Amino acid sequence: MLLLSTAITPLLAAPTLEEVRSTALNSDEIAYDIVEGLTTEIGPRQGGTEAEARARTWSVAKLKSLGFDNVRIEEYQMPTWVRGEETAEIIAPFTHKLAVTALGNSGSTGDKGLEGEIVYFPTLDDLRAAPDGSLKGKIAFVSHSMMRTQDGSSYGAFGPARFVGPNIAAKKGAAAIVIRSAGTDYHRNPHTGNTNFDADVTPIPAGALSIPDAENLERMLKRGKPVTMKLKLTPKNVGMQVSGNVLAEVKGSNPQLPIIVIACHLDSWDLGTGAIDDAAGCGIIAAAAKHLKTLGQPKRTVRLLWAGAEEVGIWGGKDYGSKHAAEPHALAMESDFGAGKVWAVDFTLPDSASEQKAKIIAALAPLGVVPRKAPAGGGADVGAIIAAQKLGIIDLQQDGTKYFDLHHTPDDTLDKIDKAEMRQNVAAWVATLAVVANYEGELKP
Amino acid sequence: MLLLSTAITPLLAAPTLEEVRSTALNSDEIAYDIVEGLTTEIGPRQGGTEAEARARTWSVAKLKSLGFDNVRIEEYQMPTWVRGEETAEIIAPFTHKLAVTALGNSGSTGDKGLEGEIVYFPTLDDLRAAPDGSLKGKIAFVSHSMMRTQDGSSYGAFGPARFVGPNIAAKKGAAAIVIRSAGTDYHRNPHTGNTNFDADVTPIPAGALSIPDAENLERMLKRGKPVTMKLKLTPKNVGMQVSGNVLAEVKGSNPQLPIIVIACHLDSWDLGTGAIDDAAGCGIIAAAAKHLKTLGQPKRTVRLLWAGAEEVGIWGGKDYGSKHAAEPHALAMESDFGAGKVWAVDFTLPDSASEQKAKIIAALAPLGVVPRKAPAGGGADVGAIIAAQKLGIIDLQQDGTKYFDLHHTPDDTLDKIDKAEMRQNVAAWVATLAVVANYEGELKP
Repeated sequence: MLLLSTAITPLLAAPTLEEVRSTALNSDEIAYDIVEGLTTEIGPRQGGTEAEARARTWSVAKLKSLGFDNVRIEEYQMPTWVRGEETAEIIAPFTHKLAVTALGNSGSTGDKGLEGEIVYFPTLDDLRAAPDGSLKGKIAFVSHSMMRTQDGSSYGAFGPARFVGPNIAAKKGAAAIVIRSAGTDYHRNPHTGNTNFDADVTPIPAGALSIPDAENLERMLKRGKPVTMKLKLTPKNVGMQVSGNVLAEVKGSNPQLPIIVIACHLDSWDLGTGAIDDAAGCGIIAAAAKHLKTLGQPKRTVRLLWAGAEEVGIWGGKDYGSKHAAEPHALAMESDFGAGKVWAVDFTLPDSASEQKAKIIAALAPLGVVPRKAPAGGGADVGAIIAAQKLGIIDLQQDGTKYFDLHHTPDDTLDKIDKAEMRQNVAAWVATLAVVANYEGELKP
Repeated sequence: MLLLSTAITPLLAAPTLEEVRSTALNSDEIAYDIVEGLTTEIGPRQGGTEAEARARTWSVAKLKSLGFDNVRIEEYQMPTWVRGEETAEIIAPFTHKLAVTALGNSGSTGDKGLEGEIVYFPTLDDLRAAPDGSLKGKIAFVSHSMMRTQDGSSYGAFGPARFVGPNIAAKKGAAAIVIRSAGTDYHRNPHTGNTNFDADVTPIPAGALSIPDAENLERMLKRGKPVTMKLKLTPKNVGMQVSGNVLAEVKGSNPQLPIIVIACHLDSWDLGTGAIDDAAGCGIIAAAAKHLKTLGQPKRTVRLLWAGAEEVGIWGGKDYGSKHAAEPHALAMESDFGAGKVWAVDFTLPDSASEQKAKIIAALAPLGVVPRKAPAGGGADVGAIIAAQKLGIIDLQQDGTKYFDLHHTPDDTLDKIDKAEMRQNVAAWVATLAVVANYEGELKP
């Protein structure tokens, strides 16, 4: 009985950072619950569509139920492209149906489809080297050698086949283009994603083949006979549509301090249910912000930005940057690389914050996180506000080894979430936020 | 220079069994080449279709080029069912498109599809227990808990959701049925496969959901509100079509001895390219038979049966059993479980052949193969001839741990073949055939 008062005291005091980090690591249910809800009750939620609007309504209710302040939607308009039918078939010298999906902003073949001989380019540079006009009436096929990388760097190296390949092929007169999906899996699920055409270039039909199909096409081509494809992609532009960001806050005790914005994106591509891309990020930042509150009110306001329409052109991030350009911000962070463990931390902070940096590194070390020398870059949705205000940035780098197995495919579903790994993210985020949200000094570099 | 003659001598002598087994294990290219050719130049080859006919033509040329004797086609007629359009969508309380595929012999919803409330059965036994008439106008949804097993036994345990679930649901008045795919992966690729309706039961539309979709549907149902699906499956029966078996032989030196038949099936389901199911089996048995010849002419004739139309009703196996019922056979073997390593060997042989059995066990031991006490059962395509003549059987059991990740899905493609594991199969097969094809005693149990 004598021990009772000492036993009770710690329960009444605010928990320590170590305790909160440990709670997040071992028993957080908030992050998974958000991913489960979005993937079950909403599913795919492409920017500018009615499904994305349902996701915003769902998100407002969820963030309010979690007790955040100032939960609200900021709408904007954006041009919207939607998928149609999509089939690809080799008709000579063998007959094969190939798994294909249209890339965002792809032109249409029309309902009758189009037929063309395949012109094979092992790499994007080979396509770049093709003489102008040499592709007239042909279907360009661009391959590449993307492999799994922990830091996701192979996407930057080989993703351009998708990002700019179609524009290059169009300028050289190609009737259409198919690429080997920018991915690292071996499933019959092509990877979609945006491509962009110059303003003076008419978009051509542009599709991604699944990797097994791309390799099969390469084997057919190696037989040495001309290979002809019939391609049907009938996407269309449906004009300006409503999209929007969902915002929520943990109010800081000192309203004079510039705020911290932490972001994810609420929209997803239409093929999967957007579990890893990026319901996971929204779950992680919301869970971390919720755990942060258990440490007591932070000095700075921490704002959650669940951005709209990232996949299809970062419309939400741009809208946020423009609408909040005049509001003082100190630091930005984003979670948009799945639910794999945080393995490294990068900083873009002033020298004066070196003590805070050391505190963060120390708080992340028990989670296995490596401090690096590379500057932090932020994420797509905070890019505009970072550029407008030259913000401080911290990147909690996630292990992306398996991320491009799933990225932008039908396979991006709830079952791909490893709860323990996602909890480690929540723990890393709350440990980081606890330091920066309670530091009153300068965070801009 | 003195060593020259001794160095040359072994090259002129026939190699030993150990040498042939080692060659197969370390450098066989025949098996992979067959899988590569069938998946690249033919692709899907459903029984009774024009693609299966092209596969037969291809196979005759390939088997002739490999130097086999009596390469020929034996045709037969069979009723043929072909896939149409297939979509499934949850329309309340949430809106979700689900990945679905029709099961073989499924009825059609008609072009307009049908809508119905989902009635959930966690297991097939739960469906069996539903009162007659209780499913009127409803869509039954049967789930199960199939897991990966090395010996594939979970397919026997949980496959009946597909094999007989639709027939049971139809008899209870269901408008349609969807099942959780009989598979062990987590990709958005449903597993097709045949189902069968009693002669007096009108086939209802019967589909398989991908496993992520089935789990999502379960999560929706757990919310407690009625769940409504719109299902469209438009397969049709196209009547009697031509199919056929491809046969080839290694002629034995003693035509009086009953022959050995070794089988695979040439047809595949239409969704994938039939790499593991069962181009691999055809590659393995052909490669083994080819290596067998390098040991010198065997005493018994070894016949290759590349059976037609296995997936859709074992039509090729039945035709073989009927056409060859009067021709003396001694032993049957089949390879139809992918390209994973052989891990066990089972026998159905007479006691008098115990010495031969010991020889086989000894020859397989260096390959890591475990002798078991279970009797061998053979394979689907040799079932009819085994039953007709009570043949000896040897089963080289393959590791099926990953087999049901791919089985009957679009993901059954060349990239899933592990060349080293497939070579181990070829080595195990040639080691086994070398014993039984040169043994003149009784092989029937």
